[in-house]
Amino acid sequence: MTDTTGPAAGDSPASSRAHLDNGGGAPLHPLARQALLQSLDEGWADPHRLHTEGRRAARLLDGAREAVAGVLGARTEEVRFTASHAAALHAAVLGTAEARRRTGGDVVVAATERAAVLHAASAAAVVHGGERHVVGVDLLGRVHLDAFRAAVASPGVALAALQHANGEVGTRQPLATAHDAARAAGVPLLVDAGASLGHDDLPETWDLLAAHPADWGGPAGVGVLAVRQRVRTVPPGPEDADPWAPGGVSVPAAFAAAVSLQAVVADRAAQDARRRALTDRVRGAVAGIPDVEVVGDPVDRLPHVVTFSCLYVDGEALVTELDRAGFAVGSGSACTASTLEPSHVLAAMGVLTHGNVRIALDRSTSEQDVDRFLAVLPGAVQRVRDVLGVGGL
Amino acid sequence: MTDTTGPAAGDSPASSRAHLDNGGGAPLHPLARQALLQSLDEGWADPHRLHTEGRRAARLLDGAREAVAGVLGARTEEVRFTASHAAALHAAVLGTAEARRRTGGDVVVAATERAAVLHAASAAAVVHGGERHVVGVDLLGRVHLDAFRAAVASPGVALAALQHANGEVGTRQPLATAHDAARAAGVPLLVDAGASLGHDDLPETWDLLAAHPADWGGPAGVGVLAVRQRVRTVPPGPEDADPWAPGGVSVPAAFAAAVSLQAVVADRAAQDARRRALTDRVRGAVAGIPDVEVVGDPVDRLPHVVTFSCLYVDGEALVTELDRAGFAVGSGSACTASTLEPSHVLAAMGVLTHGNVRIALDRSTSEQDVDRFLAVLPGAVQRVRDVLGVGGL
Repeated sequence: MTDTTGPAAGDSPASSRAHLDNGGGAPLHPLARQALLQSLDEGWADPHRLHTEGRRAARLLDGAREAVAGVLGARTEEVRFTASHAAALHAAVLGTAEARRRTGGDVVVAATERAAVLHAASAAAVVHGGERHVVGVDLLGRVHLDAFRAAVASPGVALAALQHANGEVGTRQPLATAHDAARAAGVPLLVDAGASLGHDDLPETWDLLAAHPADWGGPAGVGVLAVRQRVRTVPPGPEDADPWAPGGVSVPAAFAAAVSLQAVVADRAAQDARRRALTDRVRGAVAGIPDVEVVGDPVDRLPHVVTFSCLYVDGEALVTELDRAGFAVGSGSACTASTLEPSHVLAAMGVLTHGNVRIALDRSTSEQDVDRFLAVLPGAVQRVRDVLGVGGL
Repeated sequence: MTDTTGPAAGDSPASSRAHLDNGGGAPLHPLARQALLQSLDEGWADPHRLHTEGRRAARLLDGAREAVAGVLGARTEEVRFTASHAAALHAAVLGTAEARRRTGGDVVVAATERAAVLHAASAAAVVHGGERHVVGVDLLGRVHLDAFRAAVASPGVALAALQHANGEVGTRQPLATAHDAARAAGVPLLVDAGASLGHDDLPETWDLLAAHPADWGGPAGVGVLAVRQRVRTVPPGPEDADPWAPGGVSVPAAFAAAVSLQAVVADRAAQDARRRALTDRVRGAVAGIPDVEVVGDPVDRLPHVVTFSCLYVDGEALVTELDRAGFAVGSGSACTASTLEPSHVLAAMGVLTHGNVRIALDRSTSEQDVDRFLAVLPGAVQRVRDVLGVGGL
């Protein structure tokens, strides 16, 4: 990583390290950093207050909503900031289930949805006496459309949820068809764009949409929830002046998230080609290591994500071994806390869940970073296998 | 305001403005700003990840919890960061009511608690089929202790909530006695220190405690919830890796909040004397304006808060008039969004609720700022009265 906005030289020289675990937590985009600093000076006040400082903060927040709305193809008033991406998903599921509780308490989700969606769907079902319908996926991680169609058409469904693309394996979902099916059933569709917005073109086939600023180089501690005006939702928690983000969000964080989104969307096409070439190279090289399986759709996928699983390897041991060699990678479920948990996404796909390595390339990831990673990877896998006394070339 | 960390020259020259509305939203403390910048570089990664960058972020977050715990007289593992102060209050009320639902669904609150507490208590009562007991206060805003004692001793109470001191009128509550009463009844006491931590000495007579970093010069978008290990609580929302702050908080924001808290606690005594002298001066001068009532305890109160209400004056008009003269002040309820709403705190005290001006002095507020404010205030009040065609000297 040669980007000067990367981590300062702390535990090891920055020049020798490459951070390849940028899904949901990339270093701040240089323009996001600049926007954050500027808005710490100009947007620190409570945007609800009536004086000059308060109105200035409110203008920054409105500008941020407008910028995000522009990227989403939404109206400014349809976009709100939340405390986190997970909070946006919780609010979308619980708030829609609450508003449509007379319809029924069922929520339809794909098996590879983020943990926040799966858990909120369970919680909504408990509150409203409904059921959570989990629709399976194929070996590439793509939802079974016939099953999805049947599930949304069943009686008592308040909401359906489908990711734009999966952040672990990169596979895109057939959103347009799924949205048609949901619309035909009169069921709003929540699209989780938490791994794709800023990296991939986003279709406008959604009714509710959640997105994740820290995934595109924005700051942590802020999320995005967009709800089409035609969709009925109610804020799920206790009454608050900021009902979708009780206590309000950080105006500087929201502003920096929006600036960063505009910046990454502006050079998305160039970054798509560059990163797609790099992930293709990783997919090809990794497939040559014995007993290693690359997962997810090889073509219809996010440009920057690659995941593979290694037989006879413990994921945590491999992450540690690669970390020692100067490479930060993910493992296990990208959507839950602990990298020690096996990935529910891989399990749902029916592929190997352990010895799992997840890579998400940042805009600052260079060809050299990838080449160096591919040079050390086979040895790292072998060392972990040697320790376990299994496998071998 | 001469502090260079204040607002940049935007709508008007910084030198001519004084921001006197710092309750819940002060400019960043210089050390908080420095800590934020440093931890943006070192703490941007997801603290749950196992690699070097993730562990570095986790260390920063643990250090922040330890620092806050040190100030609170708590154990590190008793302190958690939340998405906001309101989110901390919601989680404390809902999580304790949920954990103690076999005891009953009642929640006891003082009438002057923050809106987040009042609303969460209502929500908890609805969920658990209980009641919200609102205990009245006297003319100074101090809770009626006999009524409080009787309320917590009634059957079916899951939780009681009492502020350390009120952020609008400054009045301190008799926490030690209230805590004794709650303990005698076997009811945990939630203390809202959102307006006092960093400004006033905090007693250790609490079972749960919520605090507000943006109130002491920390960043917005982060809150603090401390829960003694002996108290049973459960996270109230859907399952999450960060159950008390779904999706996690910003590590840089939490770190900056902790650094700022340590800094303000270190010079609290000096700031107490200085700001108490200034607020005494305001109280004395304001009382000399005809038909103006200064509210709250004149002595047993926060050092930096003054509120007064002006007969024959519209609060919003006065805020606007003072803003034009270069002074940012608050009005209406400090605990709800809109400054247009009358203050439930003043209403509960039985004092005048309109024409209300709320001042909270920052550490950077100078004697000159206060003198200039007192020089323009009588004219501003008179101009608003002239427009309304009422009152007059």
